[in-house]
Amino acid sequence: MTEYSIGVDLGGTNLRAAAVDQDGNLLAQVSTSTSPEKGREYVINEIVESIQELRSKQLEGRFAGVGIGVPGFILMDKGVVLNSNNLAFLENIPLRDEIERRLGAPVILENDANAAALGECWIGAGADVSDLVLLTLGTGIGGGIVYKGRVMHGFLGMAGELGHITVVPNGNPCGCGNVGCLEKHASATAITCLAELMKVTPHPNPTAEDIYNLAVAGDQKAQQVFRSVGEALGIALATLINTFNFPLYLLSGGPLPAWDYFAPAMIEEVSRRSFTYRNTKTRIEKAKLGSKAGLFGAAYLPFQAQKDRL
Amino acid sequence: MTEYSIGVDLGGTNLRAAAVDQDGNLLAQVSTSTSPEKGREYVINEIVESIQELRSKQLEGRFAGVGIGVPGFILMDKGVVLNSNNLAFLENIPLRDEIERRLGAPVILENDANAAALGECWIGAGADVSDLVLLTLGTGIGGGIVYKGRVMHGFLGMAGELGHITVVPNGNPCGCGNVGCLEKHASATAITCLAELMKVTPHPNPTAEDIYNLAVAGDQKAQQVFRSVGEALGIALATLINTFNFPLYLLSGGPLPAWDYFAPAMIEEVSRRSFTYRNTKTRIEKAKLGSKAGLFGAAYLPFQAQKDRL
Repeated sequence: MTEYSIGVDLGGTNLRAAAVDQDGNLLAQVSTSTSPEKGREYVINEIVESIQELRSKQLEGRFAGVGIGVPGFILMDKGVVLNSNNLAFLENIPLRDEIERRLGAPVILENDANAAALGECWIGAGADVSDLVLLTLGTGIGGGIVYKGRVMHGFLGMAGELGHITVVPNGNPCGCGNVGCLEKHASATAITCLAELMKVTPHPNPTAEDIYNLAVAGDQKAQQVFRSVGEALGIALATLINTFNFPLYLLSGGPLPAWDYFAPAMIEEVSRRSFTYRNTKTRIEKAKLGSKAGLFGAAYLPFQAQKDRL
Repeated sequence: MTEYSIGVDLGGTNLRAAAVDQDGNLLAQVSTSTSPEKGREYVINEIVESIQELRSKQLEGRFAGVGIGVPGFILMDKGVVLNSNNLAFLENIPLRDEIERRLGAPVILENDANAAALGECWIGAGADVSDLVLLTLGTGIGGGIVYKGRVMHGFLGMAGELGHITVVPNGNPCGCGNVGCLEKHASATAITCLAELMKVTPHPNPTAEDIYNLAVAGDQKAQQVFRSVGEALGIALATLINTFNFPLYLLSGGPLPAWDYFAPAMIEEVSRRSFTYRNTKTRIEKAKLGSKAGLFGAAYLPFQAQKDRL
């Protein structure tokens, strides 16, 4: 029987929702701005209305439910957001139950990076495996771990905080209280900061893309910035490979076009630091679904929950 | 119905076997020396005879099978040892099938640190949880990861190589090709090497226990050695906690009596490097089963396999 679900990707800036069938075909999509400045009630309403707009499109098949990717820690059993830097007003309220009540349909909340990892495992770069780790490189670095086709949550939903792995014990300070976190050495933000330290900023407030364009133009200091990023990623990936022995590790996010500038140093570091990598066919690759990974992963959640009930 | 299984702990020095019932009661035990210098046929024979000696004791209940903990990588589906530093002559032969043939009973091979982690989760320090990580501190450092009550193997049985997590990017060189592996900064071997660097060795070729005794006697340099070990363990544990968000992380092995000398620095480092640790009830504790953890974990394998078949 044909079925569809609705996935929602709730970001700090954009709110996107998509109807997807059980083969991963995108049936319809809507998007709006999240407008966090308008507060809790407004944002919850926008989520509900986006979903209702999709349901009103007379899509073919049975409706399996809603999955919502949220930036923050999720208490999975309670459907509560524990901590969200960008959407603090959604913390510690019965968010899942409230949306379920307004929709009259089952809802599953999931951390956004976890949802992206699940999406890649379902119909993306990891469609041929059931175990993978995804690192999402952005302002910070998020992580998602999929094992036997399921997101690993840990006992409180806080697993996969891979941006806070220590890669340089006395490295750059992080808001989390640590120094030398991966995300302080390899995120898009880290790229612009390293470029400032190297005095290769083309103008005030450059983006990681500006630094990338300099590297492409042959600027050796800009290229060194990406090598440094690659080394930090390599230390973290070697640790993950030695820990999990999964077949696939994926990277996604804004800095991905700079792959040719950071990947050689990354792979060199992984090769040196992981005999598992050297001796097995372990793949480190670009994710495939881009910014839609979280949307598809969220949409997959109701199908997965349904299988569990059978 | 009463049942029993037989667990075997095959070390580089000692071969121990025990009959255990399904509640974890030790029914009978035998031990001998492994004598690797006598070669493959001798060692396989000793394994089989140890098991047969236990079976000849007319133990009550149905016999569920044999589990064998082996130091090395195990290809689980094939029952083949891929790589074993201490027992290289057991590599790349159909070891499981050969022992099964001689015994006429089902056999499961498992990595020794994995077996120890499973044993602790069954009837040891982790009996109240289903997810834990164990670090075994010895000549090297081994690791075992138990998730939902099962050993995590990775796609080739190489998961849990936690002794080779990088904790100091430019640290001490390791035979694995890396520098700064956890086991080069926190194993029993590392303790004696650090003591030599600190010039606190009481005599040539001291053991980690000698250094511990100096620390107890008030030697500040010896105490500094253990603080350094604690810091290295703390970096690794913070990474594991940020990755897994499991409720429990266990340490076992020879250096455990020095807990009071390394644990304060370890916990300080973990607290600083893991907001998950600071904000949740995550436990870091001593393992309970000592050198018998692997024996019990191996004995649990046939019971677990039996549950899977039901």
